[in-house]
Amino acid sequence: MTRPDFALWVKRARAQTELWLERSLPDRTATPTQLHEAMRYAVLGGGKRIRAMLVMAAAHLGDADERAVAQAAAAVELIHAYSLVHDDLPSMDNDVLRRGKPTCHIAYGEANALLAGDALQASAFEILMQDNTLPAAQRITACRTLAQTVGSCGMVGGQFIDLNQVGQTLTQAELETMHRLKTGALIAASVTLGYNCCHNTSPDVQAALNRYAPALGLAFQVVDDVLDHEADSSTLGKTAGKDAQNHKPTFVSLLGADAAKTYAQDLQHTALNAIAMLDERADLLRGLAELIVVREY
Amino acid sequence: MTRPDFALWVKRARAQTELWLERSLPDRTATPTQLHEAMRYAVLGGGKRIRAMLVMAAAHLGDADERAVAQAAAAVELIHAYSLVHDDLPSMDNDVLRRGKPTCHIAYGEANALLAGDALQASAFEILMQDNTLPAAQRITACRTLAQTVGSCGMVGGQFIDLNQVGQTLTQAELETMHRLKTGALIAASVTLGYNCCHNTSPDVQAALNRYAPALGLAFQVVDDVLDHEADSSTLGKTAGKDAQNHKPTFVSLLGADAAKTYAQDLQHTALNAIAMLDERADLLRGLAELIVVREY
Repeated sequence: MTRPDFALWVKRARAQTELWLERSLPDRTATPTQLHEAMRYAVLGGGKRIRAMLVMAAAHLGDADERAVAQAAAAVELIHAYSLVHDDLPSMDNDVLRRGKPTCHIAYGEANALLAGDALQASAFEILMQDNTLPAAQRITACRTLAQTVGSCGMVGGQFIDLNQVGQTLTQAELETMHRLKTGALIAASVTLGYNCCHNTSPDVQAALNRYAPALGLAFQVVDDVLDHEADSSTLGKTAGKDAQNHKPTFVSLLGADAAKTYAQDLQHTALNAIAMLDERADLLRGLAELIVVREY
Repeated sequence: MTRPDFALWVKRARAQTELWLERSLPDRTATPTQLHEAMRYAVLGGGKRIRAMLVMAAAHLGDADERAVAQAAAAVELIHAYSLVHDDLPSMDNDVLRRGKPTCHIAYGEANALLAGDALQASAFEILMQDNTLPAAQRITACRTLAQTVGSCGMVGGQFIDLNQVGQTLTQAELETMHRLKTGALIAASVTLGYNCCHNTSPDVQAALNRYAPALGLAFQVVDDVLDHEADSSTLGKTAGKDAQNHKPTFVSLLGADAAKTYAQDLQHTALNAIAMLDERADLLRGLAELIVVREY
């Protein structure tokens, strides 16, 4: 796949995700309207849609059910949006800027943002359980995977560790454990959920993806730390330099900016090596591995 | 079923629920330990377990899978516990007392309580998707029912309306809509999920339950309002008189205490009439209809 072809795919995949999310969310005229507005505000019109694209790219490896892909892509983005709304709350990271606009609680108030996040989590499971042609057992696996990924031993657990280690000194291993849960778990699950949308799956491919996804998830976070250190808020669409300001350990504070960049590239290579034996259908996953490391926001 | 027999069943059902919840929650030694402690604090050692008992009582109408009953009962109580943790937060109802002890955020801090609630919601879906002998399609129905029940058009929607109507005047119809979502939806879903644990279900019985459950859910809330008005905090295990203090419309403020009590009894009769044609296996549901109206906390 050429670079322009991949760039076009990314553009289309993002537009497609927006459409799927638009259809997944309750209409803004549904009661309670203001809650639905807040949910739509938090989800639509922004975001890199990395997780949805990972679903689509992994589904591209096999004979995927298209409705299942739409459902899984929407579900991971709804979970991601909910986690951002809650992470930005005053009692958590207390942030005012997200995806280039005021955070949900700045726009709708703290209690309403909290409830919008709660409802987005539920909606992810609701979307994932809508009808498709996959065997029911596979659909149950999808739901279980998502639930495990976002719970106390996954994403929420990572956020908990992150919040409670402010001002502490972490080793690189501890930092990686935290990020493996906080960001890596949902990124890895996006790949798993995407491949789970295929009617026929191969254990060998799944094993390759199980090596690809964690490396990619960690690379994503290392790059996030570099960007937080180097980019400005208007480019990021969120407050830059927050980690240093909050005395949070990061890969930059631990390794230095240059070594962190090298580490991100090493992780990218690990991810690419893991899927080296797959045919050209894996080019989307290869493209995303590059996109994640070279992104500017 | 005699009253002593029913009282014994309630006692056993509560102990059984506690055991199921204990097993459903991550061990307190699992990382992150403090998050798991907060989750266990919010869930274990308290609560009337009305929702779990409704699951068990409805499952008693047919040939239920015992594991499915345990999963559904735990799931509804985990959701209920999460909703209480979030409702009690400073940005919401700002309450300090729940189930006779300090609320989760008083004990563990606001951010940690928020995350414990988030993780409890995920754990409910995780538990519900564990293995049992029910047909996969029925298990998907269970998950979808729970997700719809707790989302923006159900429980969270009701809490949103409740928060945003403080100080306003509601009609009885508006008040009932709010409670149908906020409390009624999960109570009704507990009945549905319980009956859904049976291998063979009858549309007639389901139709009867569809009339029983909403009346019971509303009766529960009317009684809650009466108790908030009349009981003291030590009996309730939560702060009494909060509704009047917060200028929240209640059935007592709308109808007066005596008429509210009569209304609760009328709703109880509606619920009992709905299941009048069912045999003695429905005695547990009949007993719960009485328990909900005559309870003291």
